[in-house]
Amino acid sequence: MILTNLRLADCNPDATQSAVIEDAAIEIFDGHIRWVGPRADSPPGPVTDLGGRLVTPALIDCHTHLVHGGHRAGEFAKRLNGMTYARIAGEGGGILATLSATRTASVDDLVRQALPRLDALLAEGVATVEVKSGYGLDLATERRMLQAARRLGGLRPVEIVTTFLGAHAVPPEFKGRSDAYLAEVCIPALTTLASEGLVDQVDAFCETIAFTTDQAATVLAAAKALNLPVKLHAEQLAHTGGTALAARAAALSADHVEYATTQDAALMAASGTVAVLLPGAFYTLQERQGPPVAAFREHGVSMAVATDCNPGSSPLTSLLLAMNMACTLFGLTPSEALLGTTAHAARALGKADRGRVAPGLRADLAVWNVTDPSELAYRIGFNPLFYRYFNGISC
Amino acid sequence: MILTNLRLADCNPDATQSAVIEDAAIEIFDGHIRWVGPRADSPPGPVTDLGGRLVTPALIDCHTHLVHGGHRAGEFAKRLNGMTYARIAGEGGGILATLSATRTASVDDLVRQALPRLDALLAEGVATVEVKSGYGLDLATERRMLQAARRLGGLRPVEIVTTFLGAHAVPPEFKGRSDAYLAEVCIPALTTLASEGLVDQVDAFCETIAFTTDQAATVLAAAKALNLPVKLHAEQLAHTGGTALAARAAALSADHVEYATTQDAALMAASGTVAVLLPGAFYTLQERQGPPVAAFREHGVSMAVATDCNPGSSPLTSLLLAMNMACTLFGLTPSEALLGTTAHAARALGKADRGRVAPGLRADLAVWNVTDPSELAYRIGFNPLFYRYFNGISC
Repeated sequence: MILTNLRLADCNPDATQSAVIEDAAIEIFDGHIRWVGPRADSPPGPVTDLGGRLVTPALIDCHTHLVHGGHRAGEFAKRLNGMTYARIAGEGGGILATLSATRTASVDDLVRQALPRLDALLAEGVATVEVKSGYGLDLATERRMLQAARRLGGLRPVEIVTTFLGAHAVPPEFKGRSDAYLAEVCIPALTTLASEGLVDQVDAFCETIAFTTDQAATVLAAAKALNLPVKLHAEQLAHTGGTALAARAAALSADHVEYATTQDAALMAASGTVAVLLPGAFYTLQERQGPPVAAFREHGVSMAVATDCNPGSSPLTSLLLAMNMACTLFGLTPSEALLGTTAHAARALGKADRGRVAPGLRADLAVWNVTDPSELAYRIGFNPLFYRYFNGISC
Repeated sequence: MILTNLRLADCNPDATQSAVIEDAAIEIFDGHIRWVGPRADSPPGPVTDLGGRLVTPALIDCHTHLVHGGHRAGEFAKRLNGMTYARIAGEGGGILATLSATRTASVDDLVRQALPRLDALLAEGVATVEVKSGYGLDLATERRMLQAARRLGGLRPVEIVTTFLGAHAVPPEFKGRSDAYLAEVCIPALTTLASEGLVDQVDAFCETIAFTTDQAATVLAAAKALNLPVKLHAEQLAHTGGTALAARAAALSADHVEYATTQDAALMAASGTVAVLLPGAFYTLQERQGPPVAAFREHGVSMAVATDCNPGSSPLTSLLLAMNMACTLFGLTPSEALLGTTAHAARALGKADRGRVAPGLRADLAVWNVTDPSELAYRIGFNPLFYRYFNGISC
């Protein structure tokens, strides 16, 4: 099948200028891209005319907590009515509320609640979604979260990448005993769930309010022993050394990274660690310090952009809006934002088979009712998707 | 017809607490609400079971520039690539670019370009949309903009309220001669277009970069002479006295109002002028000073929330996102944000027949897949609409 009469943003991150290729054509065969070039040179075959529309790689949301029980709208209202976060937490709110709602949810419950969020992402041209565990913090619930994530991939035309995030918080039954939680629950659960095939990657929340760099290093070491790729929530609220740890561990990505330094950027560049920018949390928490974008550019660190979809700090289910926020709040260019949800997001997931439009890659494509790729990040709360191709099938 | 098995947020702004009425029912007759109360007391008639869903008044977007030619994504990209606004404007960008694209557009062009934006609003439960002129700045183009706005109301189940905004900017052919523009073009055009039935309300852009309060007063006086209600873009970037002028003119609303003072709030309360908050522009321009919400509360000024949908400072087509931004950026509570897009938005348009769920009002309703009204403002980039009723018809 040949897609023709299209404008192509191929999202090759190594091109000097992310130019749009006018009047291009794409040959799809067996779920993959077989050929890309000018329409005039296209091979013979049945043709789908895209009416001059823009084609990009399908988008990739490389950092989400999409699977979780309940929501925290009531807490959002309480905060805006003047209640402090400390009092909300004291009354069982915050992450503990989600922990509780997730622990009491079945796999079916989790899937049913996550589906509308997933559908919102797919409706905007997303075809790969990373989903983390981390609201169970016990073996059984972490398993149900990852099972639910896997189930989502069978229910919709999307590829789900699962990430074990047992080191997300310390559960109340281990309060004040975070080392014991890691040794007795988190790492054994990782080993078990990895053996069950539920874990594609491993993440840890390295932050003043969560785990120390030493503790996070323990989790990453356990992951490495299982031959699982790693990533890290790092430097969101303060500089704690998480990014340097991620670089030492050759992590796929360090995520948030508002407080990363120029030195961190150099380390990330050397290790090939992607900086995953999460403007939805920055916006919701009304933070002031943005990530060191200029340093990332200077050192050639790949920048990805994701929703961080979660019920507390980022109840965001629009990757296009994350792209707009990355531009508006962090100063990315629209081209950088698009690379951040395509080529660089693929890199943040260790997926060499997607995120660009090039021969040999998966035929995951997005067809847009726009002519200029800048429009994708420019509009706010608008979805110009015409349709997606997932593995070569239009949907 | 009786809608039943629903949770009702009736959006009565005079209620001490915007409580949700559990297990309510609504009788619709001849496009209007005839009865509202507990399901147990509902009158006989054919029943539509809403499965426990939340019902609110249909939403009202009371400030938009929805009709315009072209877009400014290229300019968005240029700014993020480091070009100054002055240089962009010097190269014919900014409002002049939209002026040029609108002047060369036919009514059909304007309708075709506006429809996807309108559809995005309607898909989120909006049933009334205000649309301004102001990108023509000559009689013929201002007419085509208002004709396009009227046409939209015939093409979709929505009521369009048209606003003449000839005093939006000074067109290049009158550069340095703003008084002459008002006297020779703007006010004569207002008189002509009002006589053609194209003008429901009149607005002016009173700002350091636009028209002075004296100039705006001239426009409002011309509107008053035509018995047209008035409103004002006021105090967006600096305090210029626009809000006080709006109050003196008994304007329906003063819009933006970031730089309004406590004294202004007192004047607005006395004149019944609504403060229309436009967080999309505040967000896009990354402004620092928010509107005086505490003073508005203290003085009992009604606060509305709107998208300000326009191609430059707010390319926003999600009223739900405007609600979230009003909470996140301006500190409104979710209840205030909902009143801001229902009862208070109706007030900002002088429409006493909508914006609440009460006997005698239009049966413009939104049915949501949520239980708690706070969820509407809490989620970011998510649309939980089940369906709308417009004039008593589900759509």
